[in-house]
Amino acid sequence: MSTRQSWGSGAAGSGFDVDHLPYGVFSAGTDAPRVGVRIGDWVLAPAALLRGEHDDLAAACEAASLNPLMALGRPAWRRLRAWLTDVLTDRSRAEQVSPALHHLDDVVLQLPFEVADYVDFYASEHHATNVGRILRPDGEPLLPNWKHLPVGYHGRAGTVVVSGTDVVRPHGQRKGPDDPAPTFGPTRRLDLEAELGFVVGVGSVQGQPVAVDDLAEHVFGVVVLNDWSARDVQAWEYVPLGPFLGKSFATSVSAWVTPLEALDAAWCDLPGQDPEPLPYLRVGPRAGLDLNLEVELDGVVVSRPCYAAMYWSPAQLLAHTTVNGASLRTGDLLGSGTVSGPEPGTRGSLLELSWGGRDPLRVGDGERTFLEDGDEVVLRCSAPAGGGGRLTLGEVRGRVLPAVPRPLR
Amino acid sequence: MSTRQSWGSGAAGSGFDVDHLPYGVFSAGTDAPRVGVRIGDWVLAPAALLRGEHDDLAAACEAASLNPLMALGRPAWRRLRAWLTDVLTDRSRAEQVSPALHHLDDVVLQLPFEVADYVDFYASEHHATNVGRILRPDGEPLLPNWKHLPVGYHGRAGTVVVSGTDVVRPHGQRKGPDDPAPTFGPTRRLDLEAELGFVVGVGSVQGQPVAVDDLAEHVFGVVVLNDWSARDVQAWEYVPLGPFLGKSFATSVSAWVTPLEALDAAWCDLPGQDPEPLPYLRVGPRAGLDLNLEVELDGVVVSRPCYAAMYWSPAQLLAHTTVNGASLRTGDLLGSGTVSGPEPGTRGSLLELSWGGRDPLRVGDGERTFLEDGDEVVLRCSAPAGGGGRLTLGEVRGRVLPAVPRPLR
Repeated sequence: MSTRQSWGSGAAGSGFDVDHLPYGVFSAGTDAPRVGVRIGDWVLAPAALLRGEHDDLAAACEAASLNPLMALGRPAWRRLRAWLTDVLTDRSRAEQVSPALHHLDDVVLQLPFEVADYVDFYASEHHATNVGRILRPDGEPLLPNWKHLPVGYHGRAGTVVVSGTDVVRPHGQRKGPDDPAPTFGPTRRLDLEAELGFVVGVGSVQGQPVAVDDLAEHVFGVVVLNDWSARDVQAWEYVPLGPFLGKSFATSVSAWVTPLEALDAAWCDLPGQDPEPLPYLRVGPRAGLDLNLEVELDGVVVSRPCYAAMYWSPAQLLAHTTVNGASLRTGDLLGSGTVSGPEPGTRGSLLELSWGGRDPLRVGDGERTFLEDGDEVVLRCSAPAGGGGRLTLGEVRGRVLPAVPRPLR
Repeated sequence: MSTRQSWGSGAAGSGFDVDHLPYGVFSAGTDAPRVGVRIGDWVLAPAALLRGEHDDLAAACEAASLNPLMALGRPAWRRLRAWLTDVLTDRSRAEQVSPALHHLDDVVLQLPFEVADYVDFYASEHHATNVGRILRPDGEPLLPNWKHLPVGYHGRAGTVVVSGTDVVRPHGQRKGPDDPAPTFGPTRRLDLEAELGFVVGVGSVQGQPVAVDDLAEHVFGVVVLNDWSARDVQAWEYVPLGPFLGKSFATSVSAWVTPLEALDAAWCDLPGQDPEPLPYLRVGPRAGLDLNLEVELDGVVVSRPCYAAMYWSPAQLLAHTTVNGASLRTGDLLGSGTVSGPEPGTRGSLLELSWGGRDPLRVGDGERTFLEDGDEVVLRCSAPAGGGGRLTLGEVRGRVLPAVPRPLR
C-alpha cells in the first residue's frame, strides 16, 4: 500500500496520503456531523459511497462519532481501509467520489469519538525522573513501584475536547510550602503535557484481562493529546488519592484518529526494561513506537519529544489496565503520559522545560515559565510511513483564555 | 405528601410507600428494559399510563436507563413525582394502574443509569483518620489538605455494576514492605466500602462552576454504593497518582435511585468544619444527611455507619468537582467515600473494622479480616421520612467469587 498514491492533487507528500487515512467527525454547512476520512487537505464522507457495497460500514460512517465504526472490530476496520485505498487510488472512480470530498476549509471538525473511560499513564522514565527531581529533590526520583508497573490513574472523560477548543485558565486552591493556608484563585502554573492517546475500539468482558499480544484487536487508533495541568492546584490536592482538579478542567485531543494499521512501519524496540516485568507485562521486540512530537508555543517550537524513548509500551498500558478484570469499552482513551526524551530539548511539559519554574524558557522575544493568557499551544506528531515518507498525525491546538473574573455568582 | 398512603397492599411501613418512590430500570419476561418505580414489593412501569397526559415523561420512561428522565430537569422530576403520588393514592385509578404493576419477583433489575464520570471522595473524617493511623502510624493521621478541600479522584465508570452482580476476586501486583519484589496473584486483602452515591441528572457547561446552593438543580438522587477495594494492590500502586487497579475491577450500586426530593426530612447539620472552608465551599445549616447504613457480611450485621457524621456535605462535593470549570454530565456519579462514624461499630470498611487485619472480626461462628471467597456483602440504608416513618434506600448486594485460576491465556 505504501507505494500507492491518491489521484487527489496535493495528497502526495502531505503526510495525509493513502498510507495514512485518519478518521474524524466533521460537519459541513447545516449537514449533521458524520464520519470523514482525511486525504490531503480534503475530507471524504464515505457513507453514501459505501451504500450497497458495504452497508454495515455505511451505517457506521453516518454516525456523529467514530464509536459505531470502532465497535465493528478489526476485520471491518481493514475492509474499510482497503476500500478507501481502492477508491482513492483508482482514477476511474474520481468522478464518482469527488462530490463526497469537502475541503478542510469548509468543514468544522468535532470531537471524533465519545470518550468512555479516560486513563492517563506516566510511562516516560525521563518525565517521571524529571518530575521526581523537581518535586522531591531530596528523595529517589523514581518511586519504588515505577519500574514494576505502568503507574496510571483515571482522568475526567467528560472534559475531553477537540483540538481548537480554547481553554479557560481554571480556578482552584493553591498553597505554597510557606503559605499558612490555601488561597483560591486562577492557577499560576498552567502547563501543557504532550502525550499520545490510544483509542479503544473493541471492548472486553469484565473479569477477562486483555493480553499484551491483543493490542491490535482492541485499539482502533491513536490521537495526539494535550493533558493541560494546573501544577499549583495539583501539588496541593494530590495526596493521597492522586490528581483531580489540577487536570480535570480540560484535556485536548486531535480531531484525527490515525488507524493503528497506518503505523505498521513505526514500531520499534523499547529502550529496555530492567527489572524484567512480571509475565503479564512481558512484550517482544518492536513493542515501542518511533514517533516524533513537537511542542509549539506561540509559533515557536520549544521541544521535540521522541516517543521511542518511552519506557512502557502501549500494549503494556492496555494489559495493565485490564489485569484486575476491569473491562474495556468502545471509546476508552488511554493516555501515555507526558512524552519526554533524555535531552532537555525533548521534554514534554513546561514543568520540566523550565525546571519547576526556576529556568525560564526563551520563546521568541520573550520568556516563559508556565503558560500565560493568550498563549497558543500546538502539539504535532509524525511517524515513519512504509515507503520512506512520513505520516502527519493530527495536531492538537489550544489557546489559553484568561480566568473568568468571578466564577461563582 | 407524608400522610398519604398507597392503595397498594403492603406498601405502608415497607420503606417503599408513596413518600419514597425510587426509580430503577427493569425487564419483565422478554420485554425491553424500561424505567420502573418501586412501590412496596411492586414495580410500576409508568410509561404507557403517562401517554397523553405527559408525553415527555412517557418517552423518558420508555428508555432502558434513567438518563433521559434525569436530563429533563427538576421541574419534570417534580411533575412526575406528583403524578405518581396521585396515581398511587387515588383508589379510583387502581383498576387502570394495576396492569402496569409487576411483582419484584417477576422482574430483573438492571443498572439504573449509564454512568458518565465516576468521582469518589474521602469525605468522612473518621474514615480518613482511621486509614491514616493504620497506614501511616508514625505520622499525622490527616494530611494537610484534608480539612481544606474534599479529597477525591476519578474511578472507572465502565465497571460500575448493579446490586446482585457477583464480584470475581481480582488479580494484581502486591508487595509487602519486606518483600524483595512484587508478586502477581489474587488479592489477599479484598475489602468493601460502604458509601452513598449522588447521581447527577442535569449537567453543566464547561467553564462554569456549580455553586453549593445548586445541588438540587443538578443531583437527581442517591444510590447506595459498595466501592470494592483490593487493599494490597492499592497499597503498592497508589503513589503518586492515586488508586487505580485496586478499585477499578468493580463498584456496585443499588438498583434503586432514591429521588433527592424524597430525602427532604433527612437533612441535618454537619458535625462542624474547622477551619472554615474557602467561600466556594461554605454551606449553611442542614447541609448533611442523617442516613443510617448497615453492613451485613454473610447474614451478620458487622457495622452501622452513620452518614450524619460525614465532614464534607454533598453540596460541597459537587461544588468542588466543578470549581475548576469541569462540566457535569447526566449520569455523573459522585461517591461519598467510605462512611465511618466515631464508634468502632460504625466503621464502613473491613480495613478499619479489623484495624488493618490486626484484629479479626467475629462474623457468626467465624472470623474475618478481609473478604473470603463465597462471602456475601449486603449494604443497607434508611432515612427518616416526613411522617415519622423511614425510607428504605436500595440495598447493594454482592458475592465474592474465587479468582479465575489463569486469567491470561
